Amino acid sequence: MPHLDVPQFLGLLVVILGVAKLFGALAQWIGQPAVLGELVAGVVLGTSVCGLVDSKNEVLHLLAELGVVILLFEIGLETDLRKLVQVGGVSAVVATVGVALPFALGYAVCWMLGLDSLVRIVAGATLTATSVGITARVLSDLNRLQEPESRIILGAAVIDDVVGLVILAVVSGLTQGEEVTALSVAKTTTVAFGFLAATLLVGKFIVPPIVRWVSQIDLPGTPTILAIMLAFGLAWLASAAGSAMIIGAFAAGLLLRGTPNAHEIEKGVAHLAHFFVPLFFVAVGAAVDVRVLNPADPANRQTLTVGGLLIVAAVIGKFLAGYAPFWYRGNRKVIGVGMIPRGEVGLIFAQMGLASGVFDAGLFSAVTLMVMVTTFIAPPLLKLLFPPIEPDHRPPEPEGIEELVN
Amino acid sequence: MPHLDVPQFLGLLVVILGVAKLFGALAQWIGQPAVLGELVAGVVLGTSVCGLVDSKNEVLHLLAELGVVILLFEIGLETDLRKLVQVGGVSAVVATVGVALPFALGYAVCWMLGLDSLVRIVAGATLTATSVGITARVLSDLNRLQEPESRIILGAAVIDDVVGLVILAVVSGLTQGEEVTALSVAKTTTVAFGFLAATLLVGKFIVPPIVRWVSQIDLPGTPTILAIMLAFGLAWLASAAGSAMIIGAFAAGLLLRGTPNAHEIEKGVAHLAHFFVPLFFVAVGAAVDVRVLNPADPANRQTLTVGGLLIVAAVIGKFLAGYAPFWYRGNRKVIGVGMIPRGEVGLIFAQMGLASGVFDAGLFSAVTLMVMVTTFIAPPLLKLLFPPIEPDHRPPEPEGIEELVN
Repeated sequence: MPHLDVPQFLGLLVVILGVAKLFGALAQWIGQPAVLGELVAGVVLGTSVCGLVDSKNEVLHLLAELGVVILLFEIGLETDLRKLVQVGGVSAVVATVGVALPFALGYAVCWMLGLDSLVRIVAGATLTATSVGITARVLSDLNRLQEPESRIILGAAVIDDVVGLVILAVVSGLTQGEEVTALSVAKTTTVAFGFLAATLLVGKFIVPPIVRWVSQIDLPGTPTILAIMLAFGLAWLASAAGSAMIIGAFAAGLLLRGTPNAHEIEKGVAHLAHFFVPLFFVAVGAAVDVRVLNPADPANRQTLTVGGLLIVAAVIGKFLAGYAPFWYRGNRKVIGVGMIPRGEVGLIFAQMGLASGVFDAGLFSAVTLMVMVTTFIAPPLLKLLFPPIEPDHRPPEPEGIEELVN
Repeated sequence: MPHLDVPQFLGLLVVILGVAKLFGALAQWIGQPAVLGELVAGVVLGTSVCGLVDSKNEVLHLLAELGVVILLFEIGLETDLRKLVQVGGVSAVVATVGVALPFALGYAVCWMLGLDSLVRIVAGATLTATSVGITARVLSDLNRLQEPESRIILGAAVIDDVVGLVILAVVSGLTQGEEVTALSVAKTTTVAFGFLAATLLVGKFIVPPIVRWVSQIDLPGTPTILAIMLAFGLAWLASAAGSAMIIGAFAAGLLLRGTPNAHEIEKGVAHLAHFFVPLFFVAVGAAVDVRVLNPADPANRQTLTVGGLLIVAAVIGKFLAGYAPFWYRGNRKVIGVGMIPRGEVGLIFAQMGLASGVFDAGLFSAVTLMVMVTTFIAPPLLKLLFPPIEPDHRPPEPEGIEELVN
């Protein structure tokens, strides 16, 4: 996509938002989460079909990233930190098994195919990530964010995201031929998790007084803009500290949930989210190349075979992870399925594998196929196992959350 | 500003929004419209002071333009088309005199200074534009958008913006040495005004049924996103048709005002506006180079003299235009003052004069000085002549606007 002038950019936004909302409405109409429609809209608009949306365009990429940051901030705003901590042990087990098992299975598949050990490691790593954005959005579409299973999935997906960063750092070191020591891995891990812990601890004390002080300013929209600034600011800080942007945004949501302005902020941010979040899912969809699905092309047959094996490894690995906390009495099927979508995180790994020369074009396409299938099967499967609740039938939320923060 | 990665971009947005809101609150605290604070925030963050915000950065420029498009859409939503048409004659006289007089005065100033005839024309043209964005925002900050004077200013500023496009086309032809015929000028003028008329006529029939149809879709936020799509879409169409983007956005607002969802849309769009609009004013402020104000530098003395003369021409020209509709019995001082700010439109002219080689660096700085001073004096002057009304004391708005559209 060449340099866009402002009117063309406005036209492109109209097309993206229009197609995303149309496909979102169609998805809902056939009983699927709206996010599935937005992903399909991205595929249709993307390079491999219409060629209207280039996911590598700088401006679009930035706006899409604002979208996922705002989404995770919203999810944080709807998540009760105390209840998240309560399921922390279960989440940690799901996350750990959900990283180890897919890695082992992916490694085994590549070993069976006679591939190099570095290729096995990178392909295995690609299978470890969970796209917390897609899972969280599906749970939100199903109106199920307040269920214990959702909190376990969310907790595990957030842990996965942090683990994914560590794996990314290790793998990127390996592909560049650097030596990776246990010490450097431990350091990366500590920093990534330490950021979340430190932010929540420090934020618990300084965020509420700041919110109280700022809400006295008589400028319309101030609480929402302040909330967005906190989300963007912590996302930036998280990245600067070596953690993931969306972890910072999620932490900002958790911190603001207990403040008196939380409800106002939630409503205000929702309007920004309606604009920015579809841009993210369209960008994820647009990065998918559906041409590898064409079996008439002989070059695709091997890709489809390898991709098929990776899909089996990816799905089984995460699904069984849902059963890992054997003592947990909830719906463990839902947890496993909730961990399946690889989304943009998987694509980032695949891109890195290709760029570093570890993956050839065929293997890259097979990995992309795995990302595509896991991303697209999770929403309908989750919907099937975890039918949506009507907003009116949701039990009223307990009051008195303020004590957590004050 | 070099290429920005996503976290840096988030950090930059936090700084821009934070400083804009802070200076906006300070401006209000000393009794000035918030927009003045946002402009000052831009100057402080801009190239000539902190160097944090480069108004030429592509992404920031695009987001700022989304801001002014959303602002004009909001203003359109708050403007009653019927009442705007009622004051149309007065507005047209104010606009015409407000273009002719500053042009003549600017031409005269440059003639007195012994400048070339092409320079006189381009400098005169720079004095003709009114920044409808700044005026509209000040009137909105003062809670005065519903006054007849405001409607006259708004109508005249919109006409000015269209005339400005025509002048821009003519002047850009002249600076490139093209021949400009009466026919080509007439054609540009017809297209620019024809777009607005055609859009309002056609839109009156097709927008309400579309809004009714779309509001049946059960996706949260749909009316707001549809409204934004209409605003962006008409902005794009306006530009493609040879008119100005903000005219399209303003027309979208006028069209949606009468629909049953207008109130919901207004509330939803306000949240997007709180985010995007300050980016526009900060970008306008950041484009100002305050270093020309330093009288210690001898090179600035001539700039300050020429700039001072241009300021007098610019202020007197627009102020007297307010008195041009001699039969009008309202507050004509307010009208003249409301037309004074040149804002980003003036900067675009100045930039073109510099790029084409018609202005030398000194004259460019003098013109920039004129833009800066007219932009910054208008908010406090308007505030003085047109004190803000408390929202609670505003008379209730008459009902029954729907008949206009249905």
